[in-house]
Order: sequence, then structure tokens, then C-alpha cells
Amino acid sequence: MQVLIIGAAGMIGRKLTAALIARPDILGREITRMTLADVVEPPCPATSLRVTTRACDLGDGAADLVAQRPDVIFHLAAIVSGEAEADFAKGYRINMDGTRVLLEAIRAEAVQAPYCPRLIFSSSIAVFGAPFPEVIGDEFLSAPLTSYGTQKAICELLINDCSRRGIVDGVSIRLPTVVIRPGKPNAAASGFFSNILREPLVGQEAVLPVSREVRHWFCSPRAAVGYLLHAAAMETAVLGARRALSVPGLSATVGEEIEALRRIAGDKAVRLIREAPDATIDRIVSGWPQAFDARRAAALGFVGDASFDAIIRAHIDDELDGIIAS
Amino acid sequence: MQVLIIGAAGMIGRKLTAALIARPDILGREITRMTLADVVEPPCPATSLRVTTRACDLGDGAADLVAQRPDVIFHLAAIVSGEAEADFAKGYRINMDGTRVLLEAIRAEAVQAPYCPRLIFSSSIAVFGAPFPEVIGDEFLSAPLTSYGTQKAICELLINDCSRRGIVDGVSIRLPTVVIRPGKPNAAASGFFSNILREPLVGQEAVLPVSREVRHWFCSPRAAVGYLLHAAAMETAVLGARRALSVPGLSATVGEEIEALRRIAGDKAVRLIREAPDATIDRIVSGWPQAFDARRAAALGFVGDASFDAIIRAHIDDELDGIIAS
Repeated sequence: MQVLIIGAAGMIGRKLTAALIARPDILGREITRMTLADVVEPPCPATSLRVTTRACDLGDGAADLVAQRPDVIFHLAAIVSGEAEADFAKGYRINMDGTRVLLEAIRAEAVQAPYCPRLIFSSSIAVFGAPFPEVIGDEFLSAPLTSYGTQKAICELLINDCSRRGIVDGVSIRLPTVVIRPGKPNAAASGFFSNILREPLVGQEAVLPVSREVRHWFCSPRAAVGYLLHAAAMETAVLGARRALSVPGLSATVGEEIEALRRIAGDKAVRLIREAPDATIDRIVSGWPQAFDARRAAALGFVGDASFDAIIRAHIDDELDGIIAS
Repeated sequence: MQVLIIGAAGMIGRKLTAALIARPDILGREITRMTLADVVEPPCPATSLRVTTRACDLGDGAADLVAQRPDVIFHLAAIVSGEAEADFAKGYRINMDGTRVLLEAIRAEAVQAPYCPRLIFSSSIAVFGAPFPEVIGDEFLSAPLTSYGTQKAICELLINDCSRRGIVDGVSIRLPTVVIRPGKPNAAASGFFSNILREPLVGQEAVLPVSREVRHWFCSPRAAVGYLLHAAAMETAVLGARRALSVPGLSATVGEEIEALRRIAGDKAVRLIREAPDATIDRIVSGWPQAFDARRAAALGFVGDASFDAIIRAHIDDELDGIIAS
């Protein structure tokens, strides 16, 4: 079995690569070859598997990427939300045309001999935009409020149609906001959800720009990788033409995040969170989903995080060698 | 005020042109210039208005079309459902890329000086696909079961995003199935809905391939033109980022169509309908919407047909000079 990961150099891409190397098996078929592609050449992991790394821009075509006929393709590549909003043309070129180019390359490849790979696409809860109910069901409309969300919603539609036509066997996973993102604080409007946990855990101050009542929809990096792996292995016939899934995440308020931090790292850690209300971030965040009734994905075996405590503990294990700053 | 109609040679395009010529006014502003474009040059109507006709393929670009900076653009051009399903590449090139090309041309035009035209897009109830509730509400997901429906849903998303960004002031109208389509019977799976009325009204036999219990969602050509004109004149700020509207149509069964025909043209007309069940057409039609709760559009002043009797009478007036075959 051959696997291609597009966007392999990103945070989720690297963790997915590591998970596949640790257990190189999908549906009982051994992974014999992996291709890791990204706009910058992804690091080549230490493994006995046959791994090829590739630097390429989806905007320039994808024929080379699918010429080896990978059985499973993870398409995680994207211009992030803020950049897609700032640069209209670039966002559409990568986030929309990039997916189309990939689908076209797969369709062209099938002209030679039958070919219909499993395609797992990292979509986003950004396909939903306010106003919405407190809990969003599986039949609620996509009405994004960003170009990024629009591009993800369009890719979902393309993948549905191409799956219906037998060009790919697609599954789009609407990833919740991933916490705790490892690394440094960044400028993303959603960054504080991670910052207020990650920084105090290493003894650093973090800024909280919204109220503790703000509720949002989360998953850990481990859960995100778990969704993608389950999408690669699941039975897809039951999906019919609706290949985009809202997955079971964790609905929590900022206050609940902070109480989980207190239980695990104590009052000292919580005191490192500095409240500095920011009206702009508050306005942006108020347009984001708060909770989903992800009934369909749950019935299909997708599993999210058990609690915010579990999310924090996983971060401490995976990123901090089990050690909290004292 | 300048108006551009793309797809002006089609049935709705010609009727829209006639309506605008009959009353050359949008929002109290006089129409001084009309450009009629289509892949074949549209007929130039007899009028004192300044009318330009153009043969052009949206796939080849739209810069010329918007260079005159029309204030209102009706974009009705499309490859029809059956052809978009038969020819994957052509459907996407015209129905999806064509709209994108138009939006890009408008965006490029605004680089010179501010420009944000009203754009009215003819979308379709084909953006919805089974399974759905008996009555589809305004927040139900787009899950098309055809490439045509997928392309329309994608255009809706593009127009929402471009409206949010101030590139256009867009409104997408999800047209119900238009009955009675004038002209000859065609191969469209939906053709029988018109055929069983239109042909008996001129003394010809028509074939009914489905059961009389089949329910569907309809509007007359007059109502379709009315929706488009209302979309051109309405206040759009209230739409927010959700620019696609399911409009108030008429939900009726084939049996109700036939009873309306009986009331207007008598038993003799009804006897010209020959039942010839077709399993393929029955299967296709069973995946189509039956009724909508078009609450949002109704509140915004969109008005549909009062009854099937009214639809038939309008056809007799508009297409048959008021005369039923005796």
C-alpha cells in the first residue's frame, strides 16, 4: 500500500507521518511506500519504510504526485485562514484550485488504467458561519464567513461530486480547532485557545483576549490524526454522496479550559494568564461554531477527546516529555 | 443604468430581456443601455433602447463584458444538467469556471476605479439532493446529486464570498423547475412536467413517465423572471453573507397538474396524456426536492405563482395567444 501526504510539513502532517510510521498499516494492508510532499520539502523521518520527500506547489500541478498511483492520499495542504483572507488570489489558487488540480490529475491518471484512490481531505469547521444554533447538526448549511471557509466548503463539494462519479473515494474531515498547538504563539485569531494552556505549562505568561464565557469546538492533535487515520480505513459506501463529516470534538468554554489547567498544573499556572480584552478578536470569535451534534461521524466510529484534562495531559506527554514547569 | 444579461438567448434570458424592455427601470433608475450576451448571438429585440448583442464563451474570459461597467448583471448562462453530467470537463468549465471568470473580471475592473455591480445569478434547486425532509428549510445543507447541482452550489459560495468582500453585490436565486417551458418536448428528465400540459393544450399527445403521486417544486416562466427582477431591485444589506435564496414556488403533484389542466382545457385534453412508466426517470425524479419553506425569500418580497391554474393560464396568454386547441 502506497500513501501520499500533501502538506506533510505542517503540524498535523508531521504527526500523521509519525503515526503511520509507528504503525504502517491501513485496513490490514502494510504500507510499503510513503511520499511526503509540501511547498517546502518535509523532513525525512528515520524509518525503514521507503519514504520519498518532495517540495512542490499544488498550484503548479499534481500529475507527478499521483503518477505513482498512491492508494491513499491525505490532502492537508492549505493557506491558513488569515493569509487566505489577506490575499484573495493566493487563497483561491492554493485552497481551491490546488484541490481541483489534484482531482484532475487523479482523473487523468485513470484514463490509462482504472484508478480511484482514497482521498482524505482536511476540511474545517470554518465552513460554518453565524448565525447558527448552539449545536450544529449534520444537515446544517455551509455558510462560511471567510474566504478560507468558502474554499474548504467548495473543496467538500468537489470531493463529493468526484466521489459520486468514482474519480476518488473521498472523505472530508471538518477538523475542530486543534489545541494545544505546539510551538510558539502565532498571530492567528484562534491562537489564544492554545496559548493560555501551552505557555503557562512552561512557566510563561499568556494573553487571554476574550471572556471566559466564550465557547468553542476543540480537538487535540492526537484526535485530529485519529480522525484522519479512521477516514483512511473506514467503509465509505455508507457515506453516499455526502462525504464531508463534522467529527466528534469537545465543546468547552475558555473558563473550562482554565479550570482543567488548574487541576493539572495548579493555581500558579493559571496566574500566568493575563486578561487583555480585544474587541476585534472577540468579534471574530463570536462568529465561530460553539458545538456540534456530530451524530453521523460518531455512528461511523470517529472518536474525539474525552476531556480538556485529557487534551492537556496528551500535550504534556507528547511535547514536554511529561514535565510541567514548576 | 446599464444592464448586462449573460445567457440572454435562453428561454428565461429572452423573457427577461422582453420584461426589461417593456419596463426599462430598476429601482427608479432608467435603463439606458443593455448588453445581451450568449454563446450564440442573441436576437436583437425591437426597442428604442440602446442594445448591444454579443456572441461569447464565458470560458474565454469576461473582461470585454464588464469593461462597460454594467450596473446590473444577470448571469443566466449554463450548460444544462444532462450535458454537465455527460461531459464532466465542459460542465465545470462553463458552469463553475465561467462564473469565476466573471467574478475575476469584475474584481480586475475595480482596480481602476471603485466598481461593485449587482449580480443576479440563476442557481437551481439542484443544489439540494436526497435524502431531505418533505419541506426544505432555509438552513438545510446543499448536497447535490449531480455535477450541475455541484457547480451551482459552488457558484453560490463564490458569490457569497465575493459579496462579503465587496467585489459584487450578489443574489443567487434557486429557480424551481420552470413549467410550462415553451417549445418542443426535449430529452431532459424533467421535461414531462411541461410536456403533459403544453402538448395537450395544442391537441398533441404527451407521455407521462412517472406516477401521479410524484410531487415537485415549480414556477412559471413569468414567476422566474419576476424573481430575477426583484433580486435586481431589492435591498441586499439584510442578506448578510447568505446571498443564495430558495424562492417561494408551487409544490404540486403530477395529479394536481393534470386536474388543473382538466379545469382549464377539459377531459379531452387530459385524455391526450399517455401513461408510460419509465423506471429510470422515476428513480432520477425521486431524488428531487418536493417542497420548500422559502420563508426568508417570502419575507424579502419574492412572490411565486398562485396556483397551477394560473401557471397554465399564463402559458395560454403568453405562448398561445389565448387560444386552447378545440
